[in-house]
Amino acid sequence: MKQRVMSGMRTTNRLHIGNYFGALKNWVELQKDYDCFFGAMNWHALTDGYKTPDIFTKFTKDMIMDWIAFGIDPKKSIVYIQSEIPEVLELQMLFSMITPLGWLDRVTTWKDSIEDLKSKDAYNLGRYSYPVLQTADIAIFKGNKVPVGLDQVPHLELSREIVRRLNHLYKTKIPEPAQLLTENPAIVGTDGRKMSKSYGNIIPLLEEPQVIVDMAKKMVTDPARVRRTDPGNPEVCPVFMTHKLFSPTTEQAEVDRDCRTAAIGCMDCKMKLATNINAFMKKPLEKRKELLNNPGQLDEIIEDGCERARAEAKKTMGEVRSELGW
Amino acid sequence: MKQRVMSGMRTTNRLHIGNYFGALKNWVELQKDYDCFFGAMNWHALTDGYKTPDIFTKFTKDMIMDWIAFGIDPKKSIVYIQSEIPEVLELQMLFSMITPLGWLDRVTTWKDSIEDLKSKDAYNLGRYSYPVLQTADIAIFKGNKVPVGLDQVPHLELSREIVRRLNHLYKTKIPEPAQLLTENPAIVGTDGRKMSKSYGNIIPLLEEPQVIVDMAKKMVTDPARVRRTDPGNPEVCPVFMTHKLFSPTTEQAEVDRDCRTAAIGCMDCKMKLATNINAFMKKPLEKRKELLNNPGQLDEIIEDGCERARAEAKKTMGEVRSELGW
Repeated sequence: MKQRVMSGMRTTNRLHIGNYFGALKNWVELQKDYDCFFGAMNWHALTDGYKTPDIFTKFTKDMIMDWIAFGIDPKKSIVYIQSEIPEVLELQMLFSMITPLGWLDRVTTWKDSIEDLKSKDAYNLGRYSYPVLQTADIAIFKGNKVPVGLDQVPHLELSREIVRRLNHLYKTKIPEPAQLLTENPAIVGTDGRKMSKSYGNIIPLLEEPQVIVDMAKKMVTDPARVRRTDPGNPEVCPVFMTHKLFSPTTEQAEVDRDCRTAAIGCMDCKMKLATNINAFMKKPLEKRKELLNNPGQLDEIIEDGCERARAEAKKTMGEVRSELGW
Repeated sequence: MKQRVMSGMRTTNRLHIGNYFGALKNWVELQKDYDCFFGAMNWHALTDGYKTPDIFTKFTKDMIMDWIAFGIDPKKSIVYIQSEIPEVLELQMLFSMITPLGWLDRVTTWKDSIEDLKSKDAYNLGRYSYPVLQTADIAIFKGNKVPVGLDQVPHLELSREIVRRLNHLYKTKIPEPAQLLTENPAIVGTDGRKMSKSYGNIIPLLEEPQVIVDMAKKMVTDPARVRRTDPGNPEVCPVFMTHKLFSPTTEQAEVDRDCRTAAIGCMDCKMKLATNINAFMKKPLEKRKELLNNPGQLDEIIEDGCERARAEAKKTMGEVRSELGW
């Protein structure tokens, strides 16, 4: 039997290319070697977005469309919505009974966020306890492996501790989830800063070609290259960094050379980038449109995924309950 | 439409007369004026009993038998087991998203217990967050009234705050639960201290008459009354305090008088008490035996109660979800 991978994305916004290169691309690969569970995490979306929950609804389906457009195979992998799996909350509640507050207090991403969370009126129980919910997300499907970036390693260590304690107390046999350390490439936004929705510098996924062209036009370039005739430095140019993600290596080399010699201008370079992004997005965009035009098909996919996820969750929770004597 | 009362008992041990006079007696009365939901709280039982969950299983049914034996009418009131209502945990999770940690930190019963909880290895997330689960227990059935002792008043204030915040944020229409302040008579145990399982001084509910006689024999009396001929002081005597709960007022007066004049001995007095307790328990004990001999009947009652409770819980959670756009 294949090992199981569990991963999820919070349903807080439309995906951008940072999400693709940081996670989704890797998910698609993981399908080859693992039985995968991919969750649209709408409970987690509430941890800091509890004031606007309705906006998350549309992102949930939207996100799943993007996953499928880029190659998540909903026949092979289990694609589900977190809130449709009530057993996750049962396991979360049980975990919460055995998780000392000290374990949560020392989570670095918590400690370092307290002041910020307070200022955003998000210093709430849901945010504090979210590593416990995350543990339940993994354990309910007996996930063996979880793809994580370096910053998430401590969370997974905590998850292992909690699962170990459960197994020890109740003789359950839930695997302690191991990390699949994934490179988290630093994706820069259109302005050269880290790509982030809050900076308004994202490059969207799966937009019409013209949108990409317009976006490319507005991108920041090497600020030292003022005139067309000035040579540029690709190393500090967000356009060039994005070429590295989307353009063939030969073209990357050409652009690098021609920028340094001022053989091409920034606008030419940007249009080449837009063309390559659009070539890359062509098939996924078609797939997305197909799903958009067949809402019934998407609903069926989601329903089927949630049903299969629930069957697994019920099995796990059934075993746990029987160890509890419930 | 009648207002709704919600109340519950943790499934941590067999009921004793403290539980009867402190809660169950009142529940029976409340059925006349309210639509009642009575829960066997097995999630709450785990907050400090997570190390021995299996022992709670038998107390769950046992407790419900006692409820019915004393007059809870499962046709009229809804009698259910907390863990059978998954919607409670959904509402708990949503509440946790909107509950600031400051609200939990200032709960007196929490603040005052921290050291004790730490020493018992129970300084856990489940214990910390239990007022939020308690709020969900009430809100999921749109409970209007909750019978509480004085010590529980702050918890209910917190529940109102949480419900108010939910209604404010999501336009939900969950009633803010009001307290039905109930007298919490100080029930003394067989040794004169507060009746508590941990002191080993409880007077059990619904035991065979001989058990009650044996228990009465061992009860502490006025320690100053050493000889049979010494006059006693009923005011400091656990036996007399228990007479007050079970004996007719005329007999209370007689015993009071005859003790002070040494007209009766302690053993006579204890036997009178045992007789009165057994008279009081006669019918409930018969009812309990009837249920014990018909386990199928009890299972049916519980199943039916859980089903009715779940239907109400689903209704509430459906309304909440639709306000969330879920």
